[in-house]
Amino acid sequence: MTGGSAYEVEPWRVRESRLDLDNLARSESMFALSNGHIGMRGNLDEGEPHGLPGTYLNSVYEQRPLPYAEAGYGYPESSQTVINVTNGKLIRLLVDDEPFDIRYGRLDTHERALDLRAGTLVRDADWTSPAGCPIRMSSTRLVSLTQRAVAAICYEVTPLDHQVRLVVQSELVANEAIPAAGGDPRVAAALKSPLTIEEHAAHDGIAVMVHRTQRSDLLVAAAMDHVVDAPGHIDVDVTSSPEVSRFTVTTQLEKGQTLRLVKFLGYGWSATRSRPAVHDQVMAAVTGAKLTGWDGLLAEQRAYLDRFWDGADVEVDGDPEIQQAVRFALFHVLQGGARAEGRPIAAKGLTGPGYDGHTFWDTETFVLPALTYTVPRAAADALRWRQTTLPAARARAHQLGLEGAAFPWRTISGEECSGYWPAGTAAFHINADVADAVVHYLDATEDSVFEREVALELLVETARLWRSLGHRGPDGSFRIDGVTGPDEYSAIADNNVYTNLMAAQNLRFAAELAAHHPDAAADLGVTQNEVASWREAADTMTVPYDERLGIHSQSDRFTEHARWDFDRTAPEQYPLLLHVPYFDLYRKQVVKQADLVLAMHLCGDAFTAEQKARNFAYYEAITVRDSSLSACTQAVIAAELGHLELAYDYLGEAALMDFGDLEHNTGDGLHMASLAGVWIGLVAGLGGMRASPSLRFAPRLPHAISRLAFRVCYRGRHLRVVVTASSVTYELLDGAPITIFHHGVPLELDGTPQEQAIPPIEASPPPTQPPGRSPTRRTATPDLRSG
Amino acid sequence: MTGGSAYEVEPWRVRESRLDLDNLARSESMFALSNGHIGMRGNLDEGEPHGLPGTYLNSVYEQRPLPYAEAGYGYPESSQTVINVTNGKLIRLLVDDEPFDIRYGRLDTHERALDLRAGTLVRDADWTSPAGCPIRMSSTRLVSLTQRAVAAICYEVTPLDHQVRLVVQSELVANEAIPAAGGDPRVAAALKSPLTIEEHAAHDGIAVMVHRTQRSDLLVAAAMDHVVDAPGHIDVDVTSSPEVSRFTVTTQLEKGQTLRLVKFLGYGWSATRSRPAVHDQVMAAVTGAKLTGWDGLLAEQRAYLDRFWDGADVEVDGDPEIQQAVRFALFHVLQGGARAEGRPIAAKGLTGPGYDGHTFWDTETFVLPALTYTVPRAAADALRWRQTTLPAARARAHQLGLEGAAFPWRTISGEECSGYWPAGTAAFHINADVADAVVHYLDATEDSVFEREVALELLVETARLWRSLGHRGPDGSFRIDGVTGPDEYSAIADNNVYTNLMAAQNLRFAAELAAHHPDAAADLGVTQNEVASWREAADTMTVPYDERLGIHSQSDRFTEHARWDFDRTAPEQYPLLLHVPYFDLYRKQVVKQADLVLAMHLCGDAFTAEQKARNFAYYEAITVRDSSLSACTQAVIAAELGHLELAYDYLGEAALMDFGDLEHNTGDGLHMASLAGVWIGLVAGLGGMRASPSLRFAPRLPHAISRLAFRVCYRGRHLRVVVTASSVTYELLDGAPITIFHHGVPLELDGTPQEQAIPPIEASPPPTQPPGRSPTRRTATPDLRSG
Repeated sequence: MTGGSAYEVEPWRVRESRLDLDNLARSESMFALSNGHIGMRGNLDEGEPHGLPGTYLNSVYEQRPLPYAEAGYGYPESSQTVINVTNGKLIRLLVDDEPFDIRYGRLDTHERALDLRAGTLVRDADWTSPAGCPIRMSSTRLVSLTQRAVAAICYEVTPLDHQVRLVVQSELVANEAIPAAGGDPRVAAALKSPLTIEEHAAHDGIAVMVHRTQRSDLLVAAAMDHVVDAPGHIDVDVTSSPEVSRFTVTTQLEKGQTLRLVKFLGYGWSATRSRPAVHDQVMAAVTGAKLTGWDGLLAEQRAYLDRFWDGADVEVDGDPEIQQAVRFALFHVLQGGARAEGRPIAAKGLTGPGYDGHTFWDTETFVLPALTYTVPRAAADALRWRQTTLPAARARAHQLGLEGAAFPWRTISGEECSGYWPAGTAAFHINADVADAVVHYLDATEDSVFEREVALELLVETARLWRSLGHRGPDGSFRIDGVTGPDEYSAIADNNVYTNLMAAQNLRFAAELAAHHPDAAADLGVTQNEVASWREAADTMTVPYDERLGIHSQSDRFTEHARWDFDRTAPEQYPLLLHVPYFDLYRKQVVKQADLVLAMHLCGDAFTAEQKARNFAYYEAITVRDSSLSACTQAVIAAELGHLELAYDYLGEAALMDFGDLEHNTGDGLHMASLAGVWIGLVAGLGGMRASPSLRFAPRLPHAISRLAFRVCYRGRHLRVVVTASSVTYELLDGAPITIFHHGVPLELDGTPQEQAIPPIEASPPPTQPPGRSPTRRTATPDLRSG
Repeated sequence: MTGGSAYEVEPWRVRESRLDLDNLARSESMFALSNGHIGMRGNLDEGEPHGLPGTYLNSVYEQRPLPYAEAGYGYPESSQTVINVTNGKLIRLLVDDEPFDIRYGRLDTHERALDLRAGTLVRDADWTSPAGCPIRMSSTRLVSLTQRAVAAICYEVTPLDHQVRLVVQSELVANEAIPAAGGDPRVAAALKSPLTIEEHAAHDGIAVMVHRTQRSDLLVAAAMDHVVDAPGHIDVDVTSSPEVSRFTVTTQLEKGQTLRLVKFLGYGWSATRSRPAVHDQVMAAVTGAKLTGWDGLLAEQRAYLDRFWDGADVEVDGDPEIQQAVRFALFHVLQGGARAEGRPIAAKGLTGPGYDGHTFWDTETFVLPALTYTVPRAAADALRWRQTTLPAARARAHQLGLEGAAFPWRTISGEECSGYWPAGTAAFHINADVADAVVHYLDATEDSVFEREVALELLVETARLWRSLGHRGPDGSFRIDGVTGPDEYSAIADNNVYTNLMAAQNLRFAAELAAHHPDAAADLGVTQNEVASWREAADTMTVPYDERLGIHSQSDRFTEHARWDFDRTAPEQYPLLLHVPYFDLYRKQVVKQADLVLAMHLCGDAFTAEQKARNFAYYEAITVRDSSLSACTQAVIAAELGHLELAYDYLGEAALMDFGDLEHNTGDGLHMASLAGVWIGLVAGLGGMRASPSLRFAPRLPHAISRLAFRVCYRGRHLRVVVTASSVTYELLDGAPITIFHHGVPLELDGTPQEQAIPPIEASPPPTQPPGRSPTRRTATPDLRSG
């Protein structure tokens, strides 16, 4: 093991060579499998010990009350929380009547590996029972990327010494006891035993269970079927009860003989369909999977991933840890979005219950950029989900006295679930973030169906929001007062630069799209006057600039506020939000996460190079990075400004966020945005990629990385970019010729790889961070095992 | 009845001539008796029907959890809620075994009157039982202003037609069922049956009960004793149980004979003393009261009030409703503070459970000005209470990362109980409000003991708070960022004018006092450098001014915000906070209550007359008066600027706040600040009184008021000011000569009344208010019953 990671550094696997009982929750998140519809934490097959058991279905949640010490108009009354659905991962084993539990007996070896090309979680253990009977067990688990409702497990046991009697119990368990979280007894009550039985049945090797959630009123169904392969006689039994269905295999094996059980799982849910319909759906899934067979599922999975890596792989020579991290990141980002199909991609994907399973701006601003250029269909799906939530967003805007749509700060099904409005409702930038993702997707795909069916409506409704949220100030400029930008250590400020620039883009693109689709726009009630008012608002948008300092002020008067007293802040006082009140953070110059710096990434053209350099120096010195949504953006701007070693440090931090559990909450799920951030740091950072309205690259590498190669999908083409210290080679892998930009110079790409020299850059002195808040200086690990 | 009042307009009584069952809670508040230690709502003697039963002891509260949808550092975890203690008011009556309940039988007459000179609540009823037996009952209730722990009731019954058998049950009842409030079940649970029995005993006519509160751990004791006067034989019985003690008198009366029961009540509580000590304390109180006797208590009460009115009365000729209102107001303000003695004066006094029984800035900014010039000792007591809470205020400041003391926005015992920090913790002005009350008290009394013992410490600790809360901005001026001023429709703003000016005063007076008491200041750790830093901060304090508009901006950039769209606001959308979200209120120009206008009252010297006129015009047009803490201040500034009819209208609104139940919550207690505001509107408004460092008057009357006479205590003297349309007569009633100011001109007062002409004033055009938010045009009622 190296660095902060608890895993072996290998290019295509994340392998744990020894079970760490103290950090089970973390490894369960790391080893989670998902296809965006089903999510299974990497719990041990036998269920115990566990950090946090978890099986999730995208958008299956329970409602819970949101309590307030002092109520206010428009506060959401209830929230939504992802629930642990029926656990189908469970396979218990008894060895001569002793349960296989790695806390007892002797664990001789234990290895788990997430295989990023196979799309499986493989586990191998040699264990000797307390009675002295040694066995070998292995399991391979997959959540199918090709059959959306299907998961499967291949489970094998072999006695290593003498004959044993084995009992294998394969189960579906509802309402598993999970460790309590939070202090509000009403919340705990709402989430305890969330599933009420509707139907359970078992026959032959098959069992099916249908439950209903109590307040959210969703039907949840799970089914299992089995194929058993054993050398001798087996006894088989299947039973079911409201909370447990159990398939039991009993047999006797000689030393060296193997019992093999393949478990096929089908999952489904619905808010509208009938119990029989949902029942039949999961049975069909299982039947289909069984027909495909275990080997078939494996082959499909591998083929799916081969295609994915073919279009998405990033190669990093010189830093095997980052090589591993970016593939791990892409794998999980894919898992989060691959088959979500009209459902959201949550901040922690389906890897854990963190943030209540909610989706934030993380998706559009961090996850979708990575998907847009690698699996564009998944990006489209996620945006189509936003579109389905427009009724709730329009209702929310209306409640807030605004026009158009106000997307929720955090949600599962579309309703606002934020219980603290200064850092929730007030963070209106999420609407521009959605619009920005739409615009980038359109630019990257030229998807005309999406443009007409989805993009226009999303842009029009968000543009309407901005037009009604802002107003013309006394000097004639368009102002957006009293909102919260990305930096959560500031709130309810006037004219946040990020918000205003993003809103201006939103308004401008909405106007453009409405002009391109006059009839569809008219159907949405858009008038010429309205479009003109959008353009006018965009053109006169206020962008606070502090002439005295020669920098942009994050929001009005931000630079007049007291600077945070970093010298009096002890290292253990970070993250600050756990040690100082919001009131003090909000009124001082201290930045939790890239805000103005994010504006320089996403609205780069609004800044001169000199402004960027001065701004970056100023904000670096007050940014504490108490958020996982920061390092990648800082890497991007550091790289753009030529601070390549600093960019590398930030890239390392983003890469280690979950590998090193930097925020101590990987146990409740992986940070999808930070994972996507590894890709952003490499491609937009070191690769200098920008898009919309044209594809541009400006690559430069830090010393440690000798070669960076990445692939992107763009307008139906695949491109490969290979960067070395001194040059870059652009290759159009398929499709018609296209003009790209290399460090600002247009370059016509056809089938021939084109090598370009990397122009030198004279960077200003490297910026400094608050004491103790610099990213860890990255030292590349020797590339021992690559290949 | 006239105007919006439900009561007969009489100069010295508030009389209800008919029982209004639909508004019982309101009359219970209006008829509440208190001495600042004990509070008894005006519930009917027999307990039922009731709006809201209530008996309170100042600072007897229960703790309850404060729930948050999203927690934050420094959020208070629990709140304090005033509880309904042992009810000693109860006297039930059975007439030939039929309970006297005015909902049954026939109520022939029913009258209640609060006598403002006697200090009693008198009730008279003629009732015929369902069985046709007519009786007359009358009760007189007092809470003694002279014997702090004592209340008493004289209860009489007379059969009007034939012989009846009467049973009178006089009770102490703990844990009365009260109507549920609020939605949080944990809160309701915490406040249900708050009293746990510690001891109960009864013998002869005496009963005593001692209970303990569960979480706040306070001992609460109540005792009763009785004197019965009857023409014939009586049977007497006394019993007790954990929740009820009952003294029963049974007798037979002929027509015209009267049974008279005098009930003496003693109340006490303690957080530190033992059960026997508290028990003995209430027994001693009852014994003392019984020795004084009913007539003695009445006489003491009258004498106390005679002295009070002698120094405090305000005469208003031409508007009997305001005449009645100001005496009612002064009476209740006196009741709230008279014997609080080191305990707070809550926003609703001890008249109801509104605002959880909490004390806010209302006390120092509105109630204490009235007390300071009428019952200065009570003002000193309230400020001494603040001093006793300094340990909690220092701890709070420390928790917030500040120096000195941060007084809570709302509290009973000193800990912050506000569950919404933008309108709680952030409203730091409360600290300057406390300091301002201290300074005015010192100016009015020259109380040197208080100055040394109380004032210095309060001023030093609040000055330290301001010094650490603010900072030197880039232009060298002292800024206070991210705080909330009085206007609750703005929050977390930079450089609120009111806050900054009040803080500057606070810093300046602290420096002055520290210089006067160098040794005592040194004991508090004050250094010369610290004092210099206070003066410097005060001298360089930022005061936002909008040159373009020629007005002060309520806070930085306030005038650049969008103006509230009053034309699109329907009348039923007021108060706005119940119909629009805070986020929208905070970022727009709409003012809930006097803020900049209050600064012009309390820091008048910081504004020129022209600025005041322009400011008032500007802010009047955007002030919606959704708070009871506004009309009186608007009356004061309107009067100062010569808008006398507008001042009169605002005065009328303040006067009717509770009489007319303008905010629909008089039922849960009277608005002490608004009551004090009637006095402020008359004395500081029409009388133009300002003080500190000198006593100034600038009286002017609206047309309807032919004569205004008021008395104030100032530096050990009593002064009388009699104002007519054209002139004013100042009279020094006792004490050494003193210089006052009449419309800016110094005037030496000795024993001779001095008549001065009122100079004419040329007012600008009257300002306008938002549509539908002008105060009701006041039409004086004909003075039918005055005398």
